[in-house]
Amino acid sequence: MPPDPALAEDAAAALADLRAAAPLVQCITNAVVTNFTANVLLAVGASPAMTDIQGEGGVFAELADGLLVNTGTPTAEQRGAAYEAVGARRRAGRAWVLDPVAVGALPVRTALARDLLGFEPAIVRGNASEVIALAGGAGGRGTDATHGVDAARDAAAALAERAGSAVAVSGPVDLVRSPDGTVVRVPHGTPLLTRITGGGCALGALMAAFTAVRTDPAAAAVAATTVYTLAAEDAAADSAGPGSFAVALLDRLHAVTPEGIAARAELVREEVAR
Amino acid sequence: MPPDPALAEDAAAALADLRAAAPLVQCITNAVVTNFTANVLLAVGASPAMTDIQGEGGVFAELADGLLVNTGTPTAEQRGAAYEAVGARRRAGRAWVLDPVAVGALPVRTALARDLLGFEPAIVRGNASEVIALAGGAGGRGTDATHGVDAARDAAAALAERAGSAVAVSGPVDLVRSPDGTVVRVPHGTPLLTRITGGGCALGALMAAFTAVRTDPAAAAVAATTVYTLAAEDAAADSAGPGSFAVALLDRLHAVTPEGIAARAELVREEVAR
Amino acid sequence: MPPDPALAEDAAAALADLRAAAPLVQCITNAVVTNFTANVLLAVGASPAMTDIQGEGGVFAELADGLLVNTGTPTAEQRGAAYEAVGARRRAGRAWVLDPVAVGALPVRTALARDLLGFEPAIVRGNASEVIALAGGAGGRGTDATHGVDAARDAAAALAERAGSAVAVSGPVDLVRSPDGTVVRVPHGTPLLTRITGGGCALGALMAAFTAVRTDPAAAAVAATTVYTLAAEDAAADSAGPGSFAVALLDRLHAVTPEGIAARAELVREEVAR
Repeated sequence: MPPDPALAEDAAAALADLRAAAPLVQCITNAVVTNFTANVLLAVGASPAMTDIQGEGGVFAELADGLLVNTGTPTAEQRGAAYEAVGARRRAGRAWVLDPVAVGALPVRTALARDLLGFEPAIVRGNASEVIALAGGAGGRGTDATHGVDAARDAAAALAERAGSAVAVSGPVDLVRSPDGTVVRVPHGTPLLTRITGGGCALGALMAAFTAVRTDPAAAAVAATTVYTLAAEDAAADSAGPGSFAVALLDRLHAVTPEGIAARAELVREEVAR
Repeated sequence: MPPDPALAEDAAAALADLRAAAPLVQCITNAVVTNFTANVLLAVGASPAMTDIQGEGGVFAELADGLLVNTGTPTAEQRGAAYEAVGARRRAGRAWVLDPVAVGALPVRTALARDLLGFEPAIVRGNASEVIALAGGAGGRGTDATHGVDAARDAAAALAERAGSAVAVSGPVDLVRSPDGTVVRVPHGTPLLTRITGGGCALGALMAAFTAVRTDPAAAAVAATTVYTLAAEDAAADSAGPGSFAVALLDRLHAVTPEGIAARAELVREEVAR
Repeated sequence: MPPDPALAEDAAAALADLRAAAPLVQCITNAVVTNFTANVLLAVGASPAMTDIQGEGGVFAELADGLLVNTGTPTAEQRGAAYEAVGARRRAGRAWVLDPVAVGALPVRTALARDLLGFEPAIVRGNASEVIALAGGAGGRGTDATHGVDAARDAAAALAERAGSAVAVSGPVDLVRSPDGTVVRVPHGTPLLTRITGGGCALGALMAAFTAVRTDPAAAAVAATTVYTLAAEDAAADSAGPGSFAVALLDRLHAVTPEGIAARAELVREEVAR
């Protein structure tokens, strides 16, 4: 299928809307990437708040424009805050994003992530191994994907059916599956995103930011992925290795324009898969 | 009022004293900014120690030359450590700095920060919304100030009266209010400080470092703000966006000299406000 | 003693082996350095996983190719995970690395680190003051070494005897002592490593990575120290201060080659010391 310019234009418009809205995005995320994630959100024009303690998780989720729950280092305190937060979002019928980091072999986060599916995340984002493991298949070890993106298609469909979520599978070509079965491919990015920690986690936070300006979760996931991976392409061209890449990625997320997104994004919609 | 060169010279001398003393600064701070805060302290010439667990918070506070308590991610473990630490400082009659991050809408940190005021921080540092909320007014949401610096004048006066603290209000022009009512304005900095996470939090840590070399808390707050915001101006000139700005800020904090501070700082003392 | 080219060649070969194996390295480390540590491991070619919660620490330690336990911010949750993990490693007879950050004056971590010695770490890494304090002597305060590397020789010998560990003492010239009494000196590095947070902590993680490709713990410690300090020399040449140094260190760890290590490393083996 050829790229669909209308998809690129919607991603561009979503970026303009995000900058105008400056949404407040609550992140209950892992200790490794919390700084980078906050800086990604600030760079692109959102306002991060890493409110992840018990007694505040739910209160803040009522105020926040977007919410991410990432299972990378799910301490008891964070798990409590996560349940508070997703409960508040579900009661209010508002979107939130689940990033099931390293689900599969590790028991605490696997039970947590599967349980959180019952709170109906608008978007589930992971690599192929995480998506497969969350759907009940055999996952990877750690955060490295041991499966290709296309191997996660059935798992994405199963998750979409079970939780009603859009499912975003990160990889060399990113794939976003709508609950209705439509699939959009985002063929941008750079292998350097796998050589820095938080390369995927920060994308999950960006999806949460875009849910504040797009009611269709799949459109939010596509916009976030497009903005992020095009900025990453620019950053890779600027950098001498993973250290300077991470720095340049923040600079490029700040500099990227809706016009640049519209001109460059080559997003492909596949036929409905069911 | 014109700038007062004596204020600039004292800030410069305080920097020289800080470099000579290399004070050990304990930070009980939020998970998002702990790395950046430690690197800011190291860059400027202090020695950070992020000792924030129960059973060590108080022991270390007896050894440390300065102490910061920041309420950004106040887990139960950190709250316990904070009480240990501020108790030890008050018993010893030694200075400490309170940074009431995002106080207002969030219940756990708001109760904590108001309670910690009873332990008489030498300096309270926040943006205008945080200072207003800590004093009992209606605050902002998250870490973004929704009030201007001058709107916090009455709140700063109320806090100074209640806790005997110097109050530092961060904004486009920073304001430091002494307990005696004197106000010093620091008209330096860059909007990029609001596009990185920890831009304000690290300043609170720097204030704690300067309390080790200035017995007047307001003088410590002014010196920290001056050094930090002038280095930030230099860093902004070097950078292509928020990523490279954060890196350059560390380089510039390392490179900044007392002579440069004395020559460039334009600090204004206002008439006593009572 | 003149440098021994065979030592340099083994460090170079270990780097090639590491890149081929891409070992999965579990880090139970402090909140300050977790991001930088993960990025150091990714840059050099390993796969980090900061799995540090109770209920997952031991499960993951059975899967991981290497394990680091660092006592920099030992919350109750992390202490539980650390015991799970080192128990799993000892039962399986597999290597792990202990980094006793700031052991000495602080009671919780000092008791923890001394207790963990009973689980027979393959490598203990610290600065001179930490090694002395762990062995029972009077340590430093915070993370700054107040003793020179050679002052830690007796303490290293005592630790080696008690726990059977190789002991790596970081300083201007790094020293690695085998359990058999052999000492190797690594005379590389830059003072900038002491001006960034995590400069030593990340080295401990790299040692854990090298235990996956070298069964002799001292050889793993020497290889890690050599690769890290030579990359740090390159990074220092690229940088304008501590901020750009940390970025360049990641770039250089990614770029460093076995050939470069073999050509440049000047490692000295001293006579057996007993």
